[in-house]
Amino acid sequence: MQQAEVLVEAELRGHPSHGLQRLPRILTRIDKGLIDPRTRGKSHWRTPSFLDVDGLRGLGPVVALQACAILAERASSTGVAVAGIRNSNHLGMLAYYVERLANEGIIGIALSSSEALVHPYGGTTALLGTNPLAIAVPTSDRPLVVDLATSVVSMGKIHHHAANGSAIPEGWARDSDGGVTTNAANAMKGSIAPFGDAKGYALGMALELLVASIAGSSLAPEVRGTLDADAVCNKGDVLIAVDVGRQPQVLACFSSYLDRIRQSRPADPMRPVTVPGDGARSRRERALNDGFEISGNLWDELKALSRSNEALVKGIAQ
Amino acid sequence: MQQAEVLVEAELRGHPSHGLQRLPRILTRIDKGLIDPRTRGKSHWRTPSFLDVDGLRGLGPVVALQACAILAERASSTGVAVAGIRNSNHLGMLAYYVERLANEGIIGIALSSSEALVHPYGGTTALLGTNPLAIAVPTSDRPLVVDLATSVVSMGKIHHHAANGSAIPEGWARDSDGGVTTNAANAMKGSIAPFGDAKGYALGMALELLVASIAGSSLAPEVRGTLDADAVCNKGDVLIAVDVGRQPQVLACFSSYLDRIRQSRPADPMRPVTVPGDGARSRRERALNDGFEISGNLWDELKALSRSNEALVKGIAQ
Repeated sequence: MQQAEVLVEAELRGHPSHGLQRLPRILTRIDKGLIDPRTRGKSHWRTPSFLDVDGLRGLGPVVALQACAILAERASSTGVAVAGIRNSNHLGMLAYYVERLANEGIIGIALSSSEALVHPYGGTTALLGTNPLAIAVPTSDRPLVVDLATSVVSMGKIHHHAANGSAIPEGWARDSDGGVTTNAANAMKGSIAPFGDAKGYALGMALELLVASIAGSSLAPEVRGTLDADAVCNKGDVLIAVDVGRQPQVLACFSSYLDRIRQSRPADPMRPVTVPGDGARSRRERALNDGFEISGNLWDELKALSRSNEALVKGIAQ
Repeated sequence: MQQAEVLVEAELRGHPSHGLQRLPRILTRIDKGLIDPRTRGKSHWRTPSFLDVDGLRGLGPVVALQACAILAERASSTGVAVAGIRNSNHLGMLAYYVERLANEGIIGIALSSSEALVHPYGGTTALLGTNPLAIAVPTSDRPLVVDLATSVVSMGKIHHHAANGSAIPEGWARDSDGGVTTNAANAMKGSIAPFGDAKGYALGMALELLVASIAGSSLAPEVRGTLDADAVCNKGDVLIAVDVGRQPQVLACFSSYLDRIRQSRPADPMRPVTVPGDGARSRRERALNDGFEISGNLWDELKALSRSNEALVKGIAQ
């Protein structure tokens, strides 16, 4: 259920790269014993504010949501709590977890590592993960939710282009020889650029070591298991919960600040200024009314899977 | 002493925007009672891992270094500790603080807010702070230290260009009418672009609310006192310390990973790949041998100040 919800939420928000295209691989991984769909992982407090989580090969969302619940409770007494998660599977979009925390009035920060997919700024070789970062801060309205990979684009989006046979913009990626490419299939074998040149590279580099340090997980060049159906997943996740208490006046002040930003003068009069998360939210509302599109190939694949995996899917749903 | 060290360190590392050009303003602020050079601030543990710091108008570095020492000790027993600092003055470069923590084997994260200097992505009006972020992670060698403003450039650097009468590159800033400008003086009255387009904007936005939330400080449009000598400083700082314990094998693994990145094939054969912090470190080593340059104007100003402030400077040094 939780796994399915995270995938569908990504589709609703217009992030198909983190959506249902990942389902066939997840099911194959379950089939092969690389994912145990029945565990929530095993955790212990290494110190009063540091939760050590062994995911026991569980589904990424199931393990992470369990950790979120434990962290939220602890942060309410300690002020801050951090979880280092290893031996768990792909989380899908990080926004989902921090938004959960923020909806309970708690600041959430989430990090995750991945296979080596990104080249250093000024480099040509995939040596860093896409190292996404999500932050959610409560306001009196909906929380501010920010979720970004430190690559200029996610590898999921490049897969999506490859699946649709469409080209990628120049500047996104290099091929396996280190040359600039616009071919999505070649980019999948090569490397993605960091976003924001040297600064985005620096941020991604710091998050790479931060996750490995806190989660005790592998560094990008050794990571396997988020893009394949062959290896145990050895990336790491970090969740941080900060409870600053509910202060209605402060939260209202945040909301009116965000509105002031939305109402500020845009560079292009036809494109109003938005606050991060606005786009995903309006896509979600539209999709809840009108539905969302997935490719014909994926639909056929999912239908076939739903027949062959009926028993298994029932098992997960319990 | 600590204040002077932070300014000189910035000069040594080639960041004059955070260097001695700030000293005259600091001295004026002390003169006017906007900075109290003798306090380290007052702090209490709001919860076991959350340190609430009232800087009592102290010098930014003095208050923050005190908080770092308290956090480091607490993190060693709780695993993680966070400090929210308000009513303190400009910190200078954030790298300094997280590097201190990392030299003691502790992961350091530092955030700080500022006056509204940055326009939203797609916007024209200064509504966000430059919202810098620094992260340091221990390795078996020197720690990895990353320090970046979420603006494409710091306002300090624009001031530096204005002081030298040099133009700024297009894309850095807009003037007070929202138009693109390459004039540093006009940019100072206008707004700076976020780095990395929508992603850098999203990150800056999240850090803006994160700091205000944790430090209980003002949002950018209301912040005063880091660029003027007229107002009490009401920006906020956040310090996070995470102690994961010393694991020599892991730290050695981080060091060899960073070396592998340095040795990887560059896009331009003449420009080897670097790890964030390498440039600052080699500039520092060079400056320690050869000295560093400051503008003639600034030198004259500093000499005049050293005469008129001799008694005051002695007071700070104690």
